[in-house]
Amino acid sequence: MTTDAKSSPRERLLEAAATLTYRDGVAIGVDALCKAAGVSKRSMYQLFESKDELLAASLEERASAYVATLLPEADDNRSPHERIMHVFDQLASQAGAPDFQGCRYLAVQIELKDQSHPASRVARQVKANLTGFLRAEAEQGGASDPDLLARQLMLVFDGASARAGIKADTPTGLLEPTVAVLLDAAGMR
Amino acid sequence: MTTDAKSSPRERLLEAAATLTYRDGVAIGVDALCKAAGVSKRSMYQLFESKDELLAASLEERASAYVATLLPEADDNRSPHERIMHVFDQLASQAGAPDFQGCRYLAVQIELKDQSHPASRVARQVKANLTGFLRAEAEQGGASDPDLLARQLMLVFDGASARAGIKADTPTGLLEPTVAVLLDAAGMR
Repeated sequence: MTTDAKSSPRERLLEAAATLTYRDGVAIGVDALCKAAGVSKRSMYQLFESKDELLAASLEERASAYVATLLPEADDNRSPHERIMHVFDQLASQAGAPDFQGCRYLAVQIELKDQSHPASRVARQVKANLTGFLRAEAEQGGASDPDLLARQLMLVFDGASARAGIKADTPTGLLEPTVAVLLDAAGMR
Repeated sequence: MTTDAKSSPRERLLEAAATLTYRDGVAIGVDALCKAAGVSKRSMYQLFESKDELLAASLEERASAYVATLLPEADDNRSPHERIMHVFDQLASQAGAPDFQGCRYLAVQIELKDQSHPASRVARQVKANLTGFLRAEAEQGGASDPDLLARQLMLVFDGASARAGIKADTPTGLLEPTVAVLLDAAGMR
């Protein structure tokens, strides 16, 4: 975890919330978050209304980086087929990291079990943006049913990241052939 | 929740652990579990070594019913293709219930983030048994690569149950065509 003395209390709290909830779950206590961030509880509550708001802000702050890591560049001259495959190659690469525990935006929704929680709302939007990218590429690539293909790909994305996160399986030799079958069945270029 | 006065403290604790952890998550406190079960903490610790052991026992106790709900009968004269589809029809049916929050055996592993936790071990075994069923049917049905097909089907199973659990999607119009594409691609009878 970043403990750079030059980072602000706000940045340290966001970093602690992201790191500790990913590693230990959303039930992590305010005391543990403040201790890891080196910030007093009083300061925390001056910066964030509640632990819920801190968690939501930490997910929001990482959303752009998360999307940038997964998605190809806007105009990379590759086919929609290849651009979709890029997303899954990136997932496979992330899943290879020893501290990978699955997609944090899926996990937080499963753990919170409350779709109206501010952090669930942030997570849902991030995943909806990913679905939107896949749907646009599916349409661009002439998929017979772009909506269905995007839903299928998200199902594979979340299934693969969940199963890799709990060490039930690994994307190696699994993700690529599965996505390829779905893209082919949809008639994707 | 069952509050049948005739059920034993042990049964009431198992029921409370299953119901409350599914609804609220594994961080649910011992006090809340004992209160829901109408059992003192002292009695709980006489029956179970720890909350972890209670959680593991509650998952174990429901495992047979879970498998029975999902799997077809042993000799139902249907093709392996149909028998695999049966599992996903059952999942779709479960996911239609208003209190569905995804597969409890997946959720508990994601939430605990500790594969050596006694409850994670129970959950992993239950899912491995499901994978084993799918693999055996895949082989029976002449799938070109039964291992790969079983892994693909579990990926779809967990992805669909997770996404239905967080209300990101529903299996309707999604699960059946996705499984069909994978079975066809594997050359399943």
